[in-house]
Amino acid sequence: MNPLLKQMLRQAGEWMRGVGPMHEIVISTRIRLARNLDSYPFLTRATAETRLEIADAVTHAIRMSPELKSFVVLDLEKLDEIERNLLVERHLISRQQAESDGVRRVALVEAEDAAVMINEEDHLRLQVFRSGLQLEAAWEQINRLDDLLAEKVSFAFHPKYGYLTACPTNVGTGIRVSVMLHLPALRLTNEIEKVGHAAKTLKLAVRGLHGEGTEALGDFFQISNQVTLGVSEERIIRDFTSDIIPKIVKFEQSARDALVAKRPEALDDKVWRAMGILRNSRLLSSSEALQCLSHVRMGVHAGRIDDIDVGTINELFLQTQPAHLQKICGEKMTGEQRSIARAQHIRERLSRN
Amino acid sequence: MNPLLKQMLRQAGEWMRGVGPMHEIVISTRIRLARNLDSYPFLTRATAETRLEIADAVTHAIRMSPELKSFVVLDLEKLDEIERNLLVERHLISRQQAESDGVRRVALVEAEDAAVMINEEDHLRLQVFRSGLQLEAAWEQINRLDDLLAEKVSFAFHPKYGYLTACPTNVGTGIRVSVMLHLPALRLTNEIEKVGHAAKTLKLAVRGLHGEGTEALGDFFQISNQVTLGVSEERIIRDFTSDIIPKIVKFEQSARDALVAKRPEALDDKVWRAMGILRNSRLLSSSEALQCLSHVRMGVHAGRIDDIDVGTINELFLQTQPAHLQKICGEKMTGEQRSIARAQHIRERLSRN
Repeated sequence: MNPLLKQMLRQAGEWMRGVGPMHEIVISTRIRLARNLDSYPFLTRATAETRLEIADAVTHAIRMSPELKSFVVLDLEKLDEIERNLLVERHLISRQQAESDGVRRVALVEAEDAAVMINEEDHLRLQVFRSGLQLEAAWEQINRLDDLLAEKVSFAFHPKYGYLTACPTNVGTGIRVSVMLHLPALRLTNEIEKVGHAAKTLKLAVRGLHGEGTEALGDFFQISNQVTLGVSEERIIRDFTSDIIPKIVKFEQSARDALVAKRPEALDDKVWRAMGILRNSRLLSSSEALQCLSHVRMGVHAGRIDDIDVGTINELFLQTQPAHLQKICGEKMTGEQRSIARAQHIRERLSRN
Repeated sequence: MNPLLKQMLRQAGEWMRGVGPMHEIVISTRIRLARNLDSYPFLTRATAETRLEIADAVTHAIRMSPELKSFVVLDLEKLDEIERNLLVERHLISRQQAESDGVRRVALVEAEDAAVMINEEDHLRLQVFRSGLQLEAAWEQINRLDDLLAEKVSFAFHPKYGYLTACPTNVGTGIRVSVMLHLPALRLTNEIEKVGHAAKTLKLAVRGLHGEGTEALGDFFQISNQVTLGVSEERIIRDFTSDIIPKIVKFEQSARDALVAKRPEALDDKVWRAMGILRNSRLLSSSEALQCLSHVRMGVHAGRIDDIDVGTINELFLQTQPAHLQKICGEKMTGEQRSIARAQHIRERLSRN
């Protein structure tokens, strides 16, 4: 197993580090930029040879840039299915990229705060991650990454439309700003739909833990922009940072405060039942584990549980997903075997000694 | 509060003592006899004065019999609703008797192995209880109780039809033999319907924890005879003791053994999740408590849990029912207050110190 992947199993990654501004509710911040090389066709029209040339050109650009020397380029074709899924579970590559065919790579750093998907939907998908709400810092970093790559390769750019992308929904800035929120109290009080309606009005997308096409498991909701044309990157980031996200955070915080003040038993019941299931079950699906961990996380932040630290919970969010679990146990397992191993792993981590 | 009722709160009663033959699966054995005084009309046609005369005649008969001097006669009209429900939860009176109007009484002994309902559907309903499968012993005791009462009062008896009762379904012997079974493994493996079908063929009734008209909560099933005419009491008891009950017990035991041998994780998952909920929840309904206690009881008997004794579980079956809970806490409570108090009471009893 690649030493970088092996290292990952032992850490929560930037994405789940649980620090940064508003970290009790804002899990993490992500910005991605879609870019294409101007001397090659989009991937839908590229031959196998062209795909390889694109991948080599981008890899070369990364390796030639002294500032990017901490990046390690992994060939996804050479990883096994579980290893690719491990990267998906850590949000470093997309499920689409993991499951597609042909030459495709990812450039990673050990801190997991930046990644470049090569030959995903576009030739390049730059990503930067920050724990908590840190969009300006993420923007600064991805802007720099973009500039460094632009010194080595030439991106397809139209003076009127901006960056050209394989899918027209990304044309222009090619930016997607996403914020992953943990909203268990709004879910419990059935107010989560209000967030959805407000987001729709603002032309924002609300998705689940793994982005596009996934459900909001474990009370995780990803808010992201949908418009990439005619709005500057700075404007999108400013709206997210100073308006949209703080409003949702305040809404969730009020819901938590109201639960503590008015229905403490209902809150504690959710939190402690979840803890009881995590500490006692012998068969546990990944979705139930996620839901229980979500409630325990809320309980820790609301001061209802004090014998568990939130870092352990954050690690378990990652470690109990199928690919992580199989890599930790060192073997490919059936669904039932995973349920048994997941329950056991969680019991051991949460045992009171 | 009546000292006898107060005493009851601290014990599981004969019904839930958890001893006797086949006690791991057979909770308890009950025999009741329906009797009416020949000098009075059935209760449906009795005036208030007549009801009182009947009650006094039966009370007098009990008090005049030296062998029955341990019986205490309680006037149900003088008990409050919660106290009447307490007796229902302990199976000492029926829900119908608790909820009806007019003069009605019950004669009880501290050991709770015998009771006489006065002015229930019939003038007298004699009941004898035994923990585990002990129908012969119960039959001997109730036969003696019947004889002692018959020395003091004259029962309505027809030379051809036998004992006359308010409802024709009881005419003849007036006997109902009931055995309460705990069948969690058959429920888990979806084989419980087979028991129902077999019982139907044998003209037996299968009911829930509280007899007629109740559902099989917490995996408790009551099997009882339906035919009272043309079959001797001894024959019914012999069939139950040597054939019907041992067959069901064997069936449940096989299901438990198969779970242990083939699906130990599925079994432990049920058992330990139940324990996790009992030890952690903050809001607990009586039906969920019953279901969890049922799974824990199975776990103790199957050797999957060893830090809890089954006596504690049996006590909790009784103590977490609404009337018991309110009497233990010393106040009338709403449904939500009971949920909170029930969860707390169980947590305290099951805490690992």
